[in-house]
Order: sequence, then C-alpha cells, then structure tokens
Amino acid sequence: MTASGHREGSLRDRLHTVIFGTETPAGRMFDVVLLWAIVVSVLLVMLESVQEVREHYGVWLRYAEWGFTALFTVEYLLRLWVVDRPVRYARSFFGLIDLLSILPTYLAILLPGAQSFMVIRTLRLLRVFRVLKLVRYISEAGMLGRALAASRRKILVFLLAVISLVIVFGTLMYLIETPEAGFTSIPRSIYWAIVTLTTVGYGDIAPQTWLGQFMAAIIMILGYAIIAVPTGIVSAEMARAEDPGVECLVCHATGHSHDSRFCRKCGAELPALPED
Amino acid sequence: MTASGHREGSLRDRLHTVIFGTETPAGRMFDVVLLWAIVVSVLLVMLESVQEVREHYGVWLRYAEWGFTALFTVEYLLRLWVVDRPVRYARSFFGLIDLLSILPTYLAILLPGAQSFMVIRTLRLLRVFRVLKLVRYISEAGMLGRALAASRRKILVFLLAVISLVIVFGTLMYLIETPEAGFTSIPRSIYWAIVTLTTVGYGDIAPQTWLGQFMAAIIMILGYAIIAVPTGIVSAEMARAEDPGVECLVCHATGHSHDSRFCRKCGAELPALPED
Amino acid sequence: MTASGHREGSLRDRLHTVIFGTETPAGRMFDVVLLWAIVVSVLLVMLESVQEVREHYGVWLRYAEWGFTALFTVEYLLRLWVVDRPVRYARSFFGLIDLLSILPTYLAILLPGAQSFMVIRTLRLLRVFRVLKLVRYISEAGMLGRALAASRRKILVFLLAVISLVIVFGTLMYLIETPEAGFTSIPRSIYWAIVTLTTVGYGDIAPQTWLGQFMAAIIMILGYAIIAVPTGIVSAEMARAEDPGVECLVCHATGHSHDSRFCRKCGAELPALPED
Amino acid sequence: MTASGHREGSLRDRLHTVIFGTETPAGRMFDVVLLWAIVVSVLLVMLESVQEVREHYGVWLRYAEWGFTALFTVEYLLRLWVVDRPVRYARSFFGLIDLLSILPTYLAILLPGAQSFMVIRTLRLLRVFRVLKLVRYISEAGMLGRALAASRRKILVFLLAVISLVIVFGTLMYLIETPEAGFTSIPRSIYWAIVTLTTVGYGDIAPQTWLGQFMAAIIMILGYAIIAVPTGIVSAEMARAEDPGVECLVCHATGHSHDSRFCRKCGAELPALPED
Repeated sequence: MTASGHREGSLRDRLHTVIFGTETPAGRMFDVVLLWAIVVSVLLVMLESVQEVREHYGVWLRYAEWGFTALFTVEYLLRLWVVDRPVRYARSFFGLIDLLSILPTYLAILLPGAQSFMVIRTLRLLRVFRVLKLVRYISEAGMLGRALAASRRKILVFLLAVISLVIVFGTLMYLIETPEAGFTSIPRSIYWAIVTLTTVGYGDIAPQTWLGQFMAAIIMILGYAIIAVPTGIVSAEMARAEDPGVECLVCHATGHSHDSRFCRKCGAELPALPED
Repeated sequence: MTASGHREGSLRDRLHTVIFGTETPAGRMFDVVLLWAIVVSVLLVMLESVQEVREHYGVWLRYAEWGFTALFTVEYLLRLWVVDRPVRYARSFFGLIDLLSILPTYLAILLPGAQSFMVIRTLRLLRVFRVLKLVRYISEAGMLGRALAASRRKILVFLLAVISLVIVFGTLMYLIETPEAGFTSIPRSIYWAIVTLTTVGYGDIAPQTWLGQFMAAIIMILGYAIIAVPTGIVSAEMARAEDPGVECLVCHATGHSHDSRFCRKCGAELPALPED
Repeated sequence: MTASGHREGSLRDRLHTVIFGTETPAGRMFDVVLLWAIVVSVLLVMLESVQEVREHYGVWLRYAEWGFTALFTVEYLLRLWVVDRPVRYARSFFGLIDLLSILPTYLAILLPGAQSFMVIRTLRLLRVFRVLKLVRYISEAGMLGRALAASRRKILVFLLAVISLVIVFGTLMYLIETPEAGFTSIPRSIYWAIVTLTTVGYGDIAPQTWLGQFMAAIIMILGYAIIAVPTGIVSAEMARAEDPGVECLVCHATGHSHDSRFCRKCGAELPALPED
Repeated sequence: MTASGHREGSLRDRLHTVIFGTETPAGRMFDVVLLWAIVVSVLLVMLESVQEVREHYGVWLRYAEWGFTALFTVEYLLRLWVVDRPVRYARSFFGLIDLLSILPTYLAILLPGAQSFMVIRTLRLLRVFRVLKLVRYISEAGMLGRALAASRRKILVFLLAVISLVIVFGTLMYLIETPEAGFTSIPRSIYWAIVTLTTVGYGDIAPQTWLGQFMAAIIMILGYAIIAVPTGIVSAEMARAEDPGVECLVCHATGHSHDSRFCRKCGAELPALPED
C-alpha cells in the first residue's frame, strides 16, 4: 500500500499519496474527513432504524444516505484507480468492506425496502480501523494482538473448560429445575448457565427450588473465581510482550533478561545495560 | 497408555497405534472422526430435550442415537481389547466416562422413557478432553492446572472469606429486609448475597428499604473490589508457572527460551530441545 | 496462645494442649470435632429461619440448639480455665465471638421468641477461622492480608473515585430520568449507579429515555474498564509480596533482587544465589 | 499554590498557611473541618431530593443549606484574598468548583424552585479531592494516574474494539430479534449489547429466539473473556509504574527500597530519602 514504484508528479501519484499516505497535510486531512464521514453515516444508519426518526426525518436521511454513498463510491473508484494492483485491493478485507458499505444503497433500488440488509451499511464502521490504522495506534493494537495471539492456546483451553462447565451445569439444572422456572430444555438451561457463569444475570430465567438455587450459587462463585484465569493469562502475556529485553549487538537477537551476559543465539557477549 | 511392549505388526498392535497413537495419519484421522462423533452426539442429546424437535424429528434422533451408541460401543470394546490392562482401563476415569456414555441408551430399553438419566449422555462431552489431550494443548492445560494447583490454598482462603461474607451479609439482610422483598429465610438471603457479591444480579430478589439498599451497595462495591484478589493470585502464579525454559548443563542457569542456543550466563552451548 | 510456661502433666496443662495445641492427635481431633460442631450448628440456625423447616422440625432444632449451646458453653468455660490470662482471653476478639455464640440461646429464655437476635448465632461461623488459623492457611491468609494492607491506600483512592463517580452519575440520572423509571431521589439514583457500575444490574431500576440509556452505557463501559484498576493494584502487590528475595547472612535483611550483590541494610556481600 | 514569596507574619500570610498549608495544626484542623462540611452538605443535598425528607425537614434543610453556603462563600472569598494570583485561582478547576458549589443557592433565590440545578451542588463533592490532595494520597493517586495515562492508548484501542463489537452485535440482534423482545431499534439493540457485554445484564431487554440467545451467549462469553484485556494492560503498567526506588549516586543502580542504606550493586552508601 506504499507509493513506492511511482514516478512522482502525475495526478495518480499525488492522489495515491493523499488517499493512502499520512505524511502530507492533504493526506491527513483526507483521513480526518473520511473518518467523520464514516462515523456520521453510521450514526444515520442507526437513527434510521428508530421509528420516530424515520417518520419525521425519513426523507432527509435518504438524501444524506445518497450523499454519503456517492462520496464513498467516488472514494472506492479512486482507490481502485490509484492502487498498483486493483484486483488484489478489491479482494482484500478492506476492499470488500469498502464495497459492502456502498452496495446496499444501490441494491435497495432494485429490491426496494430491503431494510434487512440496509443495516449491512453499519459495516462501514470497520472502515474506521483502516483509517486509524494508517494514522496511529498500530503499535498498541499490534501489541495487544501479539499478547492475545501468544495466549490463544491457553484461552482456547479456558473457553473449552467454560463450555464444558456450562453444558454439564446446564444439563444438571434441566434435571433439577422445573419448566415453569424457564428451564424448558437443555439448550435453554445451558443459555441460563452461561448467563449466570459470566455474571450477566438477566433474571429472565432464575432457579426456584432450593437445590437449583444452591447449584446456581456454586456456578456464580465458580464464574466469579475463574474470571481470574483469562485475566491471569493475558496479564502474564502482556507483561512479557512489553519488555523486548536486551538485544545482541552481533546477531540482533532480543529477549535476553537484563542479567544475561551472553547472547542466547550467537553466544557473543551482551552489552552491559543499566538496570532499567 | 503407550504402545510400548507390543510386538509390531499384529492387528492388535496396529489398532492400538490407531486408537491411542497420534503419530500415524490413521491415528490422527481416528481422533478427528471420534471428536466429531462425540460433538454431534452431544448436540443431538441436547436437541432431543427441545420439545418441538422431539415431536418432529424424534424418530430420526432415536436412529442417530442408536448409530452413535453402536459406534461408541465398538470403540469401547476395541479399547478394552487393545490396551495392556483392560481392567485398569475400565476402572480409569476415561474408561468410566466411555462406559457412561453408552450405558444409558441400553438401560433406556429396560427402563423405557427414562429421559432423566438419558441426559447422562451429555457426559460424552468429557471424552472430548481425552481426544484433545492426546492431540495437543496438554502443556497449556497443564500450565493452567499447575497455576491453579499452586494457588489452591490462597483460593481456598479467598472462598472461605467470601462464604463468610455472604453468610454474615445474608443474615443481616434477613433482619433488615422484609419477606415481601423476597428475603423469606436466611438461606434465601444468602443466595441473594451471593447473587449480588458475584455481580450476577438476577433481580428476582432485590432490597426495597433504604437500609437494605445501602447494605446492598456495600456488598456490590465489596464484590467489585475483591474480585481483584483471585485475579491477583492467579496472575502472580501464572507469571511464575510459566515454562522455566531450558537449563544450562554447565552453570545450571535456567530461563532460556526454547530457541536459545547459548547459555545467557556462561555462554556455553545449550542442549538442543525439541520445539514444544 | 502456646502452652509454654506450664509445668507438664497437670490436667489443666493437658487440656491446654488439647484445646489450643495442634501437635497432639487429641488436639487435632478436638479441632476437627469443634469445626464440625460449629458448621452444623450454623447450618441449623439457617434452617431454623426457613418456615417449613421450623414448622416440621422446630422441636428437634431446639433440642439440637441446646445441645450445641451446652457444648460451646463447656468449651468456653474450659478455655477460660486453661488460659494464662482469662480476662485478656474473654476480652479478645475470639473470646467475644465465643461468648456471642452461646449468649443468644440463654437470652432467648428471658426474652422469649427473640428470633431477631437469635441470628447472632451465625457469628459462630467466625470461630471457624480460629480453628483453621490454628491448623493451617495462616501463611496464605497472612500473605493475602499483607498484599491488601500494602495496597490499602491505592484501594482507598480507587474507592473514593468510584464513590464520586456514582454520586455524580447518580445525580445526573436523577435529572435525566423520570421517577416512573425508578429514579425517585438522588440516593436511589446513586444506588442504581452503584448497581450499574459494579455490573450487578438488578434491573429493578433501569433507564427508559434514550439519554438515560446513553448515560447508563457510559457508566457500564466505565465500570467494565476500571475494574482493571483494583485488579492491577492487587496483582502488582501480590507479585511483590510473593518473592521475599535474597536474605543477607549478616543482618538477615530480605527483599534483595536476585542480581543484588550487597545488602541494602548493612552493605555486606550477599550470598550468590542460583537464578531461581 | 505555595506560600513562598510571602513575608511571614502578616494576617494574609497566616491565613494562607492555614487554608493552603497542612504543616501547621491550624492548617490540618482547617482541612478536617472543611472536609466534614463538604461531606455533610453533599449528604443534605441528596436527602433533600427524597420526598419524605423534604416534606418533614424541608425547612431545617434550607437553614443548613444557607449555613453551608455562607461558610463556603467566606472560604471562597478568603481563598481569593490570600492567593497570589486571584484571577488564576478563580479560573482554575478547583476555583470553578468552589464557585459552582455556592452559586446555585444564590441563584435559587432569583429563579426560585430551580431544583434542577440545585443538584449542581453535589459537585461540592469534588472539593473533597482538593482537600485530600493537600493532605496525602497524592503519591498513590499520582501513581494510579501515571499507570492509566501510560496505558491510555491501549485502553483507547480496547474501547474502540468494544464499541465496534457492540455496534456490530447490536445491529445483528436488531435483525435477529423481534421488537416484542425489546429490540425496537439499532441504538436500543446496541444499548442491550453493552448491557450484556459488560455483564451488567438488567434483563429489561432479553433475547427470546434461540438464535438470539445463541448470539447473546457468544457476546457474554466474549465480554467475560475480554475483560482480561484492560486488566492485563493496567496490571502491566502498574507493575512498571511502581516507584523506581532510590538511585545509587555512585553506580546509578535503581530499585532500592526507601529503607535501604547501601547500594545493592556497588555497596556504596545511599542518599537518605524521606520516607515517601
């Protein structure tokens, strides 16, 4: 997505710098405008779903919608024009998001009143990330991502344990409790178990018998205690993901604790760091 | 549970490799098929508990159930045949689970319509872990296990404190609040205290008097704050329970990542470990 | 609380060893019996508050109650007899608990049907800690205690911030929302804010207007995010409270990081520890 | 805000020491009195909003209110008089808070019965921080502040992810669920998604269809798991933000606790610090 390989000067190049770059004032301005356009258009999609608003300002919302769709269409076409590989861009994640965020409005003409997939336009929100990604936070997001990725296996084990717990407990509650209390089937009881274990606790389904309430109490305390597990996992990973450690000046391997004297890769002496 | 001590070649040996091993493609395939069979059969057991499904597809569910039971029975008998100590296997945790996951279907013929213990079949889910255990995640699960085991005493102290808290607060609320609000007995008030302290908050029982609401507020903030304790415990343990890493054979320094080649202390060559 | 300073052999001494000691089998047995007596008696107090139970087994409960009261009275008198300073024991925390756990039953004769302070007997539960304290977990509890004590100031600041938050938000919601929705007064609105910020969410009071729901959403995400603060505090403290560090062989000062070479107290050379 | 640059002795100087200083007994006493005045006056404002209280003790509340307003007015004027730069103080955050905490009472005369902005007086609560700030906890609060400030970017990324999640899930639920269940519009569905993801779970809106409940289950487990992220962030920051400790003036090694006398690295004498 860089402008490398372009002869400077041509309109296409300058547009590329504006649309994909963030160094130039124009590029930054473009991002900010786009960001606001996205946010506002998403807000309008939401408001459109509110009946009162639709009744009173329906026509204005439609105008605005067409405005934004036109804007995003132009942007989409421009992107297609300026990128080096249009097809690759069109197939990329953000390329598809860009398309999905303008398509529904056009389809709504052919298949009128298709409110159901007009809401797909809220996917426009995801475009915010593209803009932000280009601006900043990339390192933070990356760091969070690495921490989660590094602990994905542990988290998977944890989720597996949680799922087994709710299935077993849900089945038990289905046996213990009555359909009157809302435990009409095992899936529904499992739904209740999840609502309880995650400490959400809607209260639409709640145990009535003393045994059921006793079981529920166990699930609650369990859920209250094991929340510590994912937290511990991520905390530990995050603490590690933080400190790159000492870098070897010879082979540039990192991850040496501060009391290491030799590189773990090439065996060369490590630089003596001040105790940070 | 290893194939050691078997002469290679015989059918029994080859089956052992397929059923318990994961090195051969056949063994891996066996695990995957079994995994899916377990998951699907458990899902069917759940669906069976939904009245609409039972009414419409009851007969198909019964057919599928018999199919899975037959499959699991064959698997069970095969396991009994191929293991070195059948009795020991049959008595082992997973051996019992295997039996429990096929028994109810057979019993349901003798004692027809015993829906109540047909649900025992959901225990089949636990067999998933055996399969997974054989495949991977063992180190992660083990690590989580160690972290929890190492902090079990602290967690026990914490649970004891929580239980005392809810009993004392529950008793107080039983005195403060009226039966109309749902505080009809001390156990029920304790149930409410647990619902509140764990931040589940069903709302089926909620204080009405200002004093009761004041007490409730204290319990909530308390529960909101002390959740930090188990989290802190597990985080600390987890940070420690982390893989000690490769040990240097010369100076016995530990904490080398598995891709380290030289000791970070004395610079000596490290033993080559298999990438976990 | 040790038997030191007693001539061995006399009945009083032997009793002291049994009641307060845990080394002898008799002492351990005494603790176990007492533990069960406490737990069972507390359970009975709770059951007594359940109307059905009181109606059907009321008389048995009364007999059992008298039995336990007699038992605890004898124990109390024995403790008074065997300790070196009876008055000091009677005035100690556990001494008062011991008294409070037998007094109500006797008072209930003079002032019959005083259910209201019969429940004080649930305080017997606290005696469990005395027994446990004598047995084990003391180090764990102490460690948790230290971690909390060390972070008490930070936690206080956090609680202060939380209280201010709920007061400000509660006041705002009192202005925004209608009494119909349950926001009848500022204290009640603050109660709602606490219920929401701590993610308990009873639902007995819930915002109806879009502005109120918007405010509520902010409070929820806030409460969801700032739970991280106490957790972070306690985690950090706990991680520190864990590792006593290297001890100086000269002045026995601890808390030296493993890469320390000199004692921070007396300046003496520290023993070279293996990197744990 | 220090008394530096004042000739000692004049009334103004002495008042400055009393009002802004905490060294002198008078200064400490002033803070304590002010602290209580603030707390009590805020409590009265709250009570005033309770109808029963207003009916019975309305007149007394008004008297007390005038008393406190007079007190705070005097304090405000005194502060204006003694500070070096009155305008700067009046424009400062706490200066405005001070003004806001007395203004409403006066305005209430001109525009009688303006209950709606009488509640602004609860802002007086914020003045508590000024007093506390002057007394102690400043280091703790500062430390918490630094930890949050250091992780503000990560937290922002996290919040952005959360907001996107609730918007996407809210939109989906709006499509899946019926208006009868309470999902009447996208904003309302997003409100529900927030209520669920943050595990608040009022229950005023709850999915009815099995698909909706399945989606809800996913959101809950998601919310239950990703709470780990902010916690991990803050924990890591907090562990780092910890007091770097005393630095050795010879070898510049840090991490000495405040009661350390010798450098743990070079054994040199450490500078004597005041206990935090």
